[in-house]
Amino acid sequence: MNHQDIQFLREAIRLAHEGPAQQAGGPFGAVVVKNGEIVGSSFNRVPSTNDPTAHAEVMAIRDACARLGTFQLDGCILYASCEPCPMCLGAIYWARPDRVVYAATQSDAAAIGFDDQFIYEQIELPPAQRSIPMTQLLRDEALGAFVAWTHIENKTEY
Amino acid sequence: MNHQDIQFLREAIRLAHEGPAQQAGGPFGAVVVKNGEIVGSSFNRVPSTNDPTAHAEVMAIRDACARLGTFQLDGCILYASCEPCPMCLGAIYWARPDRVVYAATQSDAAAIGFDDQFIYEQIELPPAQRSIPMTQLLRDEALGAFVAWTHIENKTEY
Repeated sequence: MNHQDIQFLREAIRLAHEGPAQQAGGPFGAVVVKNGEIVGSSFNRVPSTNDPTAHAEVMAIRDACARLGTFQLDGCILYASCEPCPMCLGAIYWARPDRVVYAATQSDAAAIGFDDQFIYEQIELPPAQRSIPMTQLLRDEALGAFVAWTHIENKTEY
Repeated sequence: MNHQDIQFLREAIRLAHEGPAQQAGGPFGAVVVKNGEIVGSSFNRVPSTNDPTAHAEVMAIRDACARLGTFQLDGCILYASCEPCPMCLGAIYWARPDRVVYAATQSDAAAIGFDDQFIYEQIELPPAQRSIPMTQLLRDEALGAFVAWTHIENKTEY
């Protein structure tokens, strides 16, 4: 814990109040910080934008990447008013900030009706046994796209 | 398996070829289908849009939600050229389509350098032990935003 962590986490919490006040979405905020400056921020915008992926963390990551002109957040810290859900955790791993600081927990979110825990449980099940069933077909046909990819030269790895 | 599943999964695979051909991103495609019609589609656009969340599934879900004017994909089927990563799996659970059909597997993706498995392993670790360390602070302050949320009347639940 340091002074900057407290300062920026409080800004994420402030956004968690501001989003609902603007009727944007649920009580969640996030900021991305690089070299002591905020380079991306958002609150939840799911219902107001009809975008189920518009969680605060995803939107703050997208905002920071757009402003920095990169799809990798090296040297950045993500501050979130609540522990990230599985979708946001995945987004964090693809964006690769140095670390994450969060305030409220999954359990706190579940207590007001945002049940991330259910998704965490579903991830561990075999695809066909999930509440949204997932079935596999045509693997051989799909591999053609992967083989083609390996033959592309000078492609951007990510 | 039915005829429609094969038809739409082949369209997702076609998009997995088209994305790299357009230098948009990796070899992944997805379509969302409702009542036998495609209502959303995309290929991976991560490097071309500087958006680490622009996976085919996330983008197809966002496209379908925007076109349908909703943040819930009831009655829809998601077809993906590859098994969804943890981020996309989370997005699927928030969007709630009826089911998912995919072609290539996580292992196939790992074999060409897209290591979803690492993220699946990280999710199961305690936050502080992850390769991107996650620490918690200021829980009591953050709960204020949750309490405020519970007092809002006529809010959109999601």
